[in-house]
Amino acid sequence: MLAVAILAAGKGTRMVSKLPKVLHKLSGETLLERVLNVCKDLNPNKIFIVVGHESSKIIDSLKNHPNLENINFVLQQPQNGTGHAIQVLSKELQSFSGNLLVLNGDVPLITSKTLKELIKLHTSELADATLITTKKNNPHGYGRVFLKDKFVNKIIEEKDCTEKEKSNQIINSGIYCYKWESLFKIINNLRKNNKQNELYLTDTISLLNKCISYYIKSEEEIEGINNRTQLAKCEEIIQERIKYKHMMNGVTFINPATTSVSEESLIGIDVVIEANSHIRGKSVIEDNCVIGPNTFIENSYINKNSKIINSTILKSEIQDNVSIGPYTHIRPDCKISTNSKVGNFVELKQSVIAESVKINHLSYIGDSNVGKLTNIGAGTITANFDGTNKNKTFIGENCSVGANSVLIAPVILENSVTTGAGSVINKNIEKNSLGISRTKQINIKNWKK
Amino acid sequence: MLAVAILAAGKGTRMVSKLPKVLHKLSGETLLERVLNVCKDLNPNKIFIVVGHESSKIIDSLKNHPNLENINFVLQQPQNGTGHAIQVLSKELQSFSGNLLVLNGDVPLITSKTLKELIKLHTSELADATLITTKKNNPHGYGRVFLKDKFVNKIIEEKDCTEKEKSNQIINSGIYCYKWESLFKIINNLRKNNKQNELYLTDTISLLNKCISYYIKSEEEIEGINNRTQLAKCEEIIQERIKYKHMMNGVTFINPATTSVSEESLIGIDVVIEANSHIRGKSVIEDNCVIGPNTFIENSYINKNSKIINSTILKSEIQDNVSIGPYTHIRPDCKISTNSKVGNFVELKQSVIAESVKINHLSYIGDSNVGKLTNIGAGTITANFDGTNKNKTFIGENCSVGANSVLIAPVILENSVTTGAGSVINKNIEKNSLGISRTKQINIKNWKK
Amino acid sequence: MLAVAILAAGKGTRMVSKLPKVLHKLSGETLLERVLNVCKDLNPNKIFIVVGHESSKIIDSLKNHPNLENINFVLQQPQNGTGHAIQVLSKELQSFSGNLLVLNGDVPLITSKTLKELIKLHTSELADATLITTKKNNPHGYGRVFLKDKFVNKIIEEKDCTEKEKSNQIINSGIYCYKWESLFKIINNLRKNNKQNELYLTDTISLLNKCISYYIKSEEEIEGINNRTQLAKCEEIIQERIKYKHMMNGVTFINPATTSVSEESLIGIDVVIEANSHIRGKSVIEDNCVIGPNTFIENSYINKNSKIINSTILKSEIQDNVSIGPYTHIRPDCKISTNSKVGNFVELKQSVIAESVKINHLSYIGDSNVGKLTNIGAGTITANFDGTNKNKTFIGENCSVGANSVLIAPVILENSVTTGAGSVINKNIEKNSLGISRTKQINIKNWKK
Repeated sequence: MLAVAILAAGKGTRMVSKLPKVLHKLSGETLLERVLNVCKDLNPNKIFIVVGHESSKIIDSLKNHPNLENINFVLQQPQNGTGHAIQVLSKELQSFSGNLLVLNGDVPLITSKTLKELIKLHTSELADATLITTKKNNPHGYGRVFLKDKFVNKIIEEKDCTEKEKSNQIINSGIYCYKWESLFKIINNLRKNNKQNELYLTDTISLLNKCISYYIKSEEEIEGINNRTQLAKCEEIIQERIKYKHMMNGVTFINPATTSVSEESLIGIDVVIEANSHIRGKSVIEDNCVIGPNTFIENSYINKNSKIINSTILKSEIQDNVSIGPYTHIRPDCKISTNSKVGNFVELKQSVIAESVKINHLSYIGDSNVGKLTNIGAGTITANFDGTNKNKTFIGENCSVGANSVLIAPVILENSVTTGAGSVINKNIEKNSLGISRTKQINIKNWKK
Repeated sequence: MLAVAILAAGKGTRMVSKLPKVLHKLSGETLLERVLNVCKDLNPNKIFIVVGHESSKIIDSLKNHPNLENINFVLQQPQNGTGHAIQVLSKELQSFSGNLLVLNGDVPLITSKTLKELIKLHTSELADATLITTKKNNPHGYGRVFLKDKFVNKIIEEKDCTEKEKSNQIINSGIYCYKWESLFKIINNLRKNNKQNELYLTDTISLLNKCISYYIKSEEEIEGINNRTQLAKCEEIIQERIKYKHMMNGVTFINPATTSVSEESLIGIDVVIEANSHIRGKSVIEDNCVIGPNTFIENSYINKNSKIINSTILKSEIQDNVSIGPYTHIRPDCKISTNSKVGNFVELKQSVIAESVKINHLSYIGDSNVGKLTNIGAGTITANFDGTNKNKTFIGENCSVGANSVLIAPVILENSVTTGAGSVINKNIEKNSLGISRTKQINIKNWKK
Repeated sequence: MLAVAILAAGKGTRMVSKLPKVLHKLSGETLLERVLNVCKDLNPNKIFIVVGHESSKIIDSLKNHPNLENINFVLQQPQNGTGHAIQVLSKELQSFSGNLLVLNGDVPLITSKTLKELIKLHTSELADATLITTKKNNPHGYGRVFLKDKFVNKIIEEKDCTEKEKSNQIINSGIYCYKWESLFKIINNLRKNNKQNELYLTDTISLLNKCISYYIKSEEEIEGINNRTQLAKCEEIIQERIKYKHMMNGVTFINPATTSVSEESLIGIDVVIEANSHIRGKSVIEDNCVIGPNTFIENSYINKNSKIINSTILKSEIQDNVSIGPYTHIRPDCKISTNSKVGNFVELKQSVIAESVKINHLSYIGDSNVGKLTNIGAGTITANFDGTNKNKTFIGENCSVGANSVLIAPVILENSVTTGAGSVINKNIEKNSLGISRTKQINIKNWKK
């Protein structure tokens, strides 16, 4: 049996934030969600989140979590330290038998691979407690671990360290695997014998018989977040991991340091991602696309051989061989089909664009269907909003909408319709017809303003 | 008594520039302004700037400096070295008694904290001269300092160093505090016994009795600028300092390395600054705003909970809960009020937008007032320029301006006015009225181009 | 006599690409083109490219290469290793006498300076083979070189190294200069005595008498590309080289790490390049320009004192003192003359803009000539496409084109013409005339939608 406790009760004062620390985000997910994601791979029997400060915000933040039914919230009030957190938790685990893995809500980069190895070592060694340790060049801020071979002799929080003790670079990750039966026996023996007047979980080590160290090389995994410089550093680490993965899978990044990719996004081979491009949410970029520079894509699908330059695309589907940008804004719920081209200063919203359509310049197309091979002239605007409702515009195939046309929805242009430049179209137009509203041009000579 | 001399007479040949070196900028301020800012905190009795090369440009550059009356320019012509600079200065300080702090116009990262400690040490040690030293891994380009305990034995300019002397990593910052009476006695004894045929200020050390070293750890502070790679490096250091400060104060930076913030800007807590965003001049961003990616804000005020995405805002005031972007350009002297939204491909200039206004797409609103709850249709243009003058447009509350309207200023739309799409409005419209200029649409069947 | 062999037959499996490895690009040029560029400076008598995998794509990629007549392609089929490549090549060199320089198509950062020194050393030492070596902190992936003084004792490929041999940090660059007569005698004596079952060129060392090492300090030059993280790293190195050169020549980069410049571009002194700007192709930026932030310039000429902010410029000529941006798109074949201004949300295409023209907002000007001192109102569109052809628009000097005008090409506006706002202009307008097409505005009181 495996129970996991995630400590998430602290305030995170150094974040200087109205948000509890574990609700700050890294690459789109909260710290707490990240730790929960790691848990999932361990298939634990129970997950406990120990909450305290702003507990309702934390509980709220998970209300749509896919694994919510398996998550138990335990309220630690007041927050008297990590040892106290487990004391509070112990009431929930009276009859539990097995291992308790203790994670921290503010240590989001730990991997399930490392945790599995921790548990494996703990189990095979029949230890009472096993904790993850590493060596840090700059151990400032971490508790120091004093080892004898693989055995943990003691742990001293930095605040309680002497100068000499501080020079020890072996640090405590704060991640422990306990044999629950052993921990349960001694958890209430902890004392507040420290400068913080708190109950430290670290003090369990001296109360247990067999405490061993699982030493890992990667400092990154146990990077804790106490302030926003550490948040920025972890963001960078996550992004480097993600981009490394994509590079090894056949994606070219021109200037990776200026680019971000969400963990959930998929990118095909021979895609080129130019500088300052950001792929967010659940996006898919198929083979041979060119993305950027300066492109922002969120929750969208881009089929192969498309080029999205200096543009913003939100929750839309772009088919293959499409050219978009620069300075194009595709708002949610658009579909742009094969071989189409959407150019500069064009906004699309909730519209379906068929194949081989051109919308090259300075247009707003909203709540519209545009048929294949149609050309939308520069400055075309679908007036989809009548002050109360949003109405739909249908434009057929092979149409030619003149420059600076206004199409007042609801309106239908059938196939092969032409509209005159500068027209205001508020009546439907049958196929093969011209729709026009225009006053004749007059020229006045010798005119002065 | 404290006098400060800032050496700013050199040409800065390696900058390869028509601008004197000290007028190059870092994060919006010239090197010289930066050194002057540091001086201010020392409350010196006198400030001298020794100028020579392009002296009039340098004097000009400070003509609006707030502390100008306390700055004395001393002309060094020709420029025969740093020792010569102080010889020239000495005429101004004949009757002066106290300390002379010598700073360099091209060492802009020195902090007032360090200088205060330099002066304090100098004073308490009753030294004739105290100079700031540090150890550099790569001391190339700097004069080497040879110490005996805290005492300076000698300083040798790199150009005059033997290979063995070059291996000394203790370098001269070029920043000195002198007991003026001691320096004054020997300043004219300097000799040009070096490869450059110049009078070196460093040579004063061997002419004075008690010269001590104030050793500092931070290489950064005494980073000198001789070429543009060093300029870029100092820019990076300044930006890191500024962003670190904001992170510790509760600001999230998603990719800090791609973002810049001016020293004068203020940012509230829980603001999120996305990649490639630049906050310049005197700007204020209040709590909970989201800025970027790709947002440029200069001399503007952004109230809380506003979102400014992929946009440019210059010298304007944005109230709370406003949404701007992407691809919006707010030119100077705009005010955008609470709950308003300005969308893509919209330019605003010298306009006041009341609460809950929508200007969502493809519009130019200049020299205008827009009343609350008004909706400006896509493609609306205020024709504010009649070829000679800029005229004003007034749009009342609750108006609905139709798509592709041109409003020819001066013109007034009273409250609750509607204009027809595609209209050219050149006459005022009373409240609750529709203004329209439109030709009926005709449809012509079987039309071919 | 000097012959050069460039090894380009490999697949580059770890690139995970449909493109052969040597056709991947760095700063706009393929790896192979880069190696060829380096060769050029050596004035070789013969250049051989050994191709194998996807040989036709590689041959195709060079079909417009300026030096094509001097390039010989040698087909290595199957690809049985580097030694086999030279065996295949040896048929072409039966009667050759002189040195053979062996380069790798995937080692693109080698400089001609280093190669010249390699050849010089090789020649003066009367060596049979000279190879470039260096020391790498992380030698992983490279063959290790075992030296006795300057003599190469043996080379062992990493895959065939013992653990102890792997700790040797002296690595083989894969770049060799051979005395051809010596190599030719033994090239067919190579054996496949290794784990890869290939013929290694490294094994020639033990078959030749006098093999020496040319040790270089710069790891960068022999950086090999096997995967896309290495591609990204080489891109960064190239960009650092290029930007360093420009900085030393008097160009200011505000945030160089976010900016890219092609090798062929020229930049004048006191140009300021702001963050996230990209200068590509053969571009020239003259003195005192301000470029960026967020500006993309390709194959364009920008004369002095121009400011290009947050804009895209392709294959165009911008004269001096021009102001462009933000959010401007200059498409190919435009010329914008002195003192003109092109503003936000403006697209220009194949147009000639004379001096002191203003096109400030929301316009599309294509296939047009615009005379000096003309003002193009916001929302102006040249309807240059009649569904079949692109037609031209001529706008004279001193014109004032009203807001939201459509100019239906072909059409001529002579000098000093004014057009009314919102007009559709499809007839020519004589000089000093007003052209207008407008319906009178009517106001309807108490109007409700």
